[in-house]
Parts: sequence; C-alpha cells; structure tokens
Amino acid sequence: MGKDTMKNIVTKARKAARGLSILSTAEKDRILLAMAKGIDSAADWIKKANAEDVERAGKSGKNSAFIDRLKLDAERIDGISRMIRKVAELKDPIGEVLERLERPNGLVIEKVRVPIGVIGIIYESRPNVTADCTALCFKSGNAVILRGGSDAISSNKAIYNAMKEAASAAGLTEDAFILVEDTSRELVDDMLNSSGGIDLIMPRGGESLIRQVVEKSRVPVIKHYKGICHVYVDEHADLSMAEEICYNAKVQRPGVCNAMETMLVHESVAAFFLPRVFKKLSEAGVTLKGDTAARKILGSKSIVEATEDDFHTEYLDLVLNIRVVDSLDEAVDHIAEFGTDHSDAIVTENEKNALEFTKRVDSAAVYVNASTRFTDGGEFGKGAEIGIATGKLHARGPMGLSELTTYKYVVTGTGQVRE
Amino acid sequence: MGKDTMKNIVTKARKAARGLSILSTAEKDRILLAMAKGIDSAADWIKKANAEDVERAGKSGKNSAFIDRLKLDAERIDGISRMIRKVAELKDPIGEVLERLERPNGLVIEKVRVPIGVIGIIYESRPNVTADCTALCFKSGNAVILRGGSDAISSNKAIYNAMKEAASAAGLTEDAFILVEDTSRELVDDMLNSSGGIDLIMPRGGESLIRQVVEKSRVPVIKHYKGICHVYVDEHADLSMAEEICYNAKVQRPGVCNAMETMLVHESVAAFFLPRVFKKLSEAGVTLKGDTAARKILGSKSIVEATEDDFHTEYLDLVLNIRVVDSLDEAVDHIAEFGTDHSDAIVTENEKNALEFTKRVDSAAVYVNASTRFTDGGEFGKGAEIGIATGKLHARGPMGLSELTTYKYVVTGTGQVRE
Repeated sequence: MGKDTMKNIVTKARKAARGLSILSTAEKDRILLAMAKGIDSAADWIKKANAEDVERAGKSGKNSAFIDRLKLDAERIDGISRMIRKVAELKDPIGEVLERLERPNGLVIEKVRVPIGVIGIIYESRPNVTADCTALCFKSGNAVILRGGSDAISSNKAIYNAMKEAASAAGLTEDAFILVEDTSRELVDDMLNSSGGIDLIMPRGGESLIRQVVEKSRVPVIKHYKGICHVYVDEHADLSMAEEICYNAKVQRPGVCNAMETMLVHESVAAFFLPRVFKKLSEAGVTLKGDTAARKILGSKSIVEATEDDFHTEYLDLVLNIRVVDSLDEAVDHIAEFGTDHSDAIVTENEKNALEFTKRVDSAAVYVNASTRFTDGGEFGKGAEIGIATGKLHARGPMGLSELTTYKYVVTGTGQVRE
Repeated sequence: MGKDTMKNIVTKARKAARGLSILSTAEKDRILLAMAKGIDSAADWIKKANAEDVERAGKSGKNSAFIDRLKLDAERIDGISRMIRKVAELKDPIGEVLERLERPNGLVIEKVRVPIGVIGIIYESRPNVTADCTALCFKSGNAVILRGGSDAISSNKAIYNAMKEAASAAGLTEDAFILVEDTSRELVDDMLNSSGGIDLIMPRGGESLIRQVVEKSRVPVIKHYKGICHVYVDEHADLSMAEEICYNAKVQRPGVCNAMETMLVHESVAAFFLPRVFKKLSEAGVTLKGDTAARKILGSKSIVEATEDDFHTEYLDLVLNIRVVDSLDEAVDHIAEFGTDHSDAIVTENEKNALEFTKRVDSAAVYVNASTRFTDGGEFGKGAEIGIATGKLHARGPMGLSELTTYKYVVTGTGQVRE
C-alpha cells in the first residue's frame, strides 16, 4: 500500500466505501471485535515498533511532551483495544430515519442517515489516532485514509497491520481503512486535492498543522483551531458556585481545549468575588493576568497586566486572564471578539440573563451554571468522539458517530409524475 | 454601500448577524411583509431599471435564453412579492430544540437550531435571486451579502433598494442584507477569501461560475454542479408505470437539473419496453442515443450511438441516452460512474430490488416508482428552496430554511464541575 499513488488509494477507498455503506451492524461489530483482539495479540509487536519511534524521536531531540504523546505502554495499548470494543457497543447511526413525510400526492419522503463516504485523517504523532479513527469511521460505514506523521510511522504501521489482518481474517475484503505509509509531503498535497474522491478531511494535531490543511485543501475540512473558553460571572451569580466552576474550568485539566482561558466578572460582584477566587487559584499554582479594574481590586503587585494578545491566547496551562465587565452586554461583546466559538459559560441565578447569554453567544457549546470542561463526546453522551468542530457547517462541538454521517432522501411512490 | 471594501461589508454583516439571530419570528415576518409591499410599490421603478439591463444585454449581443433569465415583467415582479409573502408564512426554524438529553450528572444538554451567520451569494443574471435569497436568509436569521452579475446590476439595485427602504421604514436598523454594487472581480475574490467573516458561500448560476467559486474559495461552499439523473427500469417493473415516469422525467421540463438524462433498462424487458417508450418519446420530439443493445432493438437507423461523453452530459434538452443493462448491479455501477449524486430512480415492483437500489445509489434523492422531477424544495414540503446541494456535508438535496441553519449546544447545570 505504501508505494501506492494517492489516486490509487482514493480509488480503492471509494470502492470500499460502497461496500461498507451496506454492511450490517452485526457484521461491523463482529469485525470491530476481531480488530480489538488483533490489537491485544499484537501488543508486544506494537510496543517494539513504538520503541523504534520513541528512540528516533529521542535522538532527533524531540521534547518530553512530544515523546509522551508518541509513547505506547501496555496500558495505552490496552486502552486502544478497549476503545475499539466500546465503539462496537455504540449504536449504529446508519439507516436511522431522521424525518418522514407523506406528501398530498402520496409520495413518502424519508430522510435517512447514510455514511459520508471516504474520510481523510491527517495527524501528527499520536499513534492511537490510527485506531480511534479507524474504529469510528468503520462503525459509521465510512472508508478512511489515514496519513499519520513520519515520527510515529512504525507504531502506526504496527497498529494498522494488527487491525487490518484481524479484519481480513474475519472476512473483510474491502480496503475499508488504508494507512498512507509514504509520509512525503507530496502525498498529503495529493490528498488535499482529491476533491470528488475524498469527501471530508479531518486534521488532528496542533494549530499549525490545521492551518496548513485548511489553507491548501480543495476537500471540505472539519476542524477546530483552538479553544479560548470564557466563564462569565454575572452580577446575579451564586458566587460559591462561580468559584467552583471557575476553579474546575481552569485547574482540573488546563492542557485541553475546553479549559477556561479568560474569566469575565461583573463589576458589581468583582470586589467580593475576585479576592476569594484569586486565593484559590493562586494556591493551585495559577498565574493571573488582569485588566486595570481587576488589578485595582487585587493589587497591581500580585497580578500582572493582561494585554490584548493575552486575551487572544490559548494558554493550555495554569495561566488565566481576568477582565471586569460592566454588563452582560460587555461580556458577550468580549466573547464575540476574543472567543473561538468553542465553549463559553455564564454563572447566574437570573433566568433572563441566562437566556440572553445562551442566545447571543455564538459558540458550539454555551453553558449555564456548569464548567466548560464538559464539552467532550463522552460527556455529551456520544460514547466516543473523533474531534470537536468549531466551524458552523455540518457539525459543531463534539463529533461522535452521528457526526460522521450525512443523509439521503429516499422517496417512494406508486408511479407519481410531476404535473 | 457600493464603494465599500469587502472588509467593511463583512464587518457590517457580522454585526447585523448578531442582531438578527435574536429577532423574534413576529418581527421578522412583519419586516418581510413590509418588504413584499415595498416590491409592489416599486414595481414600475424595477421594470424601468430592468429595461436598462435588458437593453444593454441586447446591445452586447446576449442570446435570447440569457435575456429571458434577465427580464422582469409585471407578472415576474408580482411573483417576487408573492414569494416574500410565502417565506413570511413559513415556519421559523430558529430556536427549535433538535435533541434534548439529561445526563446522569443532571446536566441538561439541548441541541438548538441557530442561524449560520453570514451567507454570501454569488449569482449571475437572474434578478429574482436578489429577493429570494434576501427573504430566505432573513427569515432564517442570517445576514446575507449579495453579489449579482454586472448584467443585472440595475435590476438588482432596484429590487434591493425597494426591500431595503421598506425594511428600514419597518424599523430594521441592521445591515441584514447588503448588495455589493461594485461588480469588479476583485471584490468577488475578497469575498471568497473572507474566511472567518463569511460562514458560507452559495454560488447560483452555470457550471463555470460554480467551478470558479469552488476553485478559489477559502470559505465553505455549498453547490451543485449539475444533475445527470437516471431512471432504471428494472426487470420487475410495471412497464406502463415505467413509461409514464420516463416520459415525465425527460419531457415535462427538460431544462432543469432534476430531469432524466439517461434511461437504464434491464435486458429482460428491453425488447418489449424500448419500442413503446421510443415511440412516445420520439413523438414528443426527444432525440435518442443508445448503446449497442438498444440500437439493436430499435434499429441503428432510428437511434444514434451514445458515446461515453454522452453519458457524462447534462443535456438540459430533449435528448436522452439509453443503455441496456444486464442487472441491477450494472445499473448501480453505471450511476456510480456517470451520475452526479443528484436524483436517480428505480421503477420496480420487487421490494428487494427497490431496497437494494436505495441503499446502494449514493445520491441526494433516490426514488422508487416516481419521477426524478420531484427533487425540489416545494415538492419536498420545504415551502421554498435556496438551492439543491449535491455535496455530502451540511445539506443534501433541496435546501429550504432549515438547511440555512446550524445548531449550538445549550448546556444547563446547577453548578456541575468535571471530576
């Protein structure tokens, strides 16, 4: 497969997609379980292949965060096969009738969920993406073309081959998932130019990878760049609740896209609230940056000034901006200017303000009295997620199996013709 | 507005979109009715402006089909205001709760329909598009940037100003719809580069316009290139029904995208069916092209040979390809190779074959025992349509008000934080 041209790969995937779209749920689940078993059986082999990648990364001076993303130990490999088994358990979205309409002329119009077709995944150094995306695309009836980074190529091949061989042994004849073993740039460019052949590209990785893909792609792309998430503490907030939510949104796992980066506080509660939350956050090791009003309350020695750039920064770290606003309007305007359409929250006991906030803040997920950290496929009841979309079209927020589908209209008549 | 830069236009539209997204249904409908009245009052003025465009088109040697698309008479202007009134009557999709889920931790997750934001329309010489798109985008809470062709600029300005003035008089302060009066290419390019400012571009016009837009756009595009629609007459077809359906799909209105371009006939019924349908179609003035088997049945003198190019051609005219196939498989394969994912039909009394066809043919609309001519917003119960999408993402088939929306998740808690 590795030396194939992208044109050949796409042709194979398109052919496979036609077969996959009519595979029964039972067949898909049986093959998924075989793939999970395949991973289990190949665990030592995967570990060995991964050690090669890790050694190469070490020699080429990659940092520890990079190596952590790359590394597979027994537990992580076990996690991969557990994930595949979990996907097998999820409800198959294909065939679901989303709407049904009988027209006055007797035509029955059904809007039916179908797979998208061929999905391209472009990713960096996390080898588990190979298995995650294969399992999710397979269950949703899509063929997938996987193009992982060269740094993880040995691990990706090992995982891929384990799944592929197990699926073949279980009777899967189609090229339902294809790993692009040639990691040259040219093949990525060919992939991004496969309009008509690949239906959707999903980049998985850092902002620069995503920007490159979006910039070059002739194929529709679903992505999220980054999450600059806000919590707005309203004048009518329960301040103890606000403190818990802000603490959780910043501290519980700062390195993820749904963590809070900026806290907005209404001026009428700032003098009381800020010192309390400041203490709690400081004790957790959070560095705070504030606007003039926040610094006036907290003391300019204890908190540095937040610049406009800071408000545009996704820290992914224990750093937080604070801004005091004079109204819900100002909070909404701030989010419109600095937000990334990801996840934003209001803490308030006032229903009118809550409604106003949820209507006016145009983010994939808008929260009332809860932490932004819940924006996640699992927490949204999707079982698993392939990514979080911050664009407006096709899918927004956590994407599970349903978001890997589209629909067709099936129209059944008894000989109707148009007048 | 005309001399504005695209950046300024987009900024105004984005601001307007924020206001529009929270406008009540009653407000929107009141303003739409005012706009319809505005068109009625300005009918003479619009006719005069249109006469300028028509005269210019005549002088520059445009053909009669072009001038027909451009021309507005009293009846067509009346059609515009009737269309706006009809849109006012349609159900407002905004605010609809698409899904509601209560999580074990008590979080209530609602998936709520919201406007997309700012929509850009790039169109050619049909001035009614100005009014259609304004009304549909307005009702669905979207701001719209309209860039029509220079050939229709006087008509577009007249329609636009009539609607704009009426809306302002009715109290609309936002720049909810903006006509780009400067029809230079540069502004179109700026529009296609407004990623982050414009959420969606919809080209309306011929294939070459659409290809140019798709080629250049950095903004997501929803489009349909063309409709090469098929009717497959199965071996188990009711042949009288098949004859009616094929006749209707080809003859009733050949110049539209949901008309049939190729008829596929199972070999076991071809000898009986083809002569009958040939007679009926010939009498209606249809020129037929056939494969070897069809020509053998019909006589090679009465029907020319269909080339591979013919099977790829959207005639939009009284011309039809005929191919005899040996199985449903071959019909499905033919459609996969030559179809355009638009509308395809099977005529059969065999339920298994019907199901097989609807599962395996990957088109926006798949028909059993009905004419492909029904793929249309009105016929699908959508009241009005802004276009037909043949892509896979966001929307497929006829696009009405609902397809001009996206969703957000509104998550309501009582202080929940992530463990």
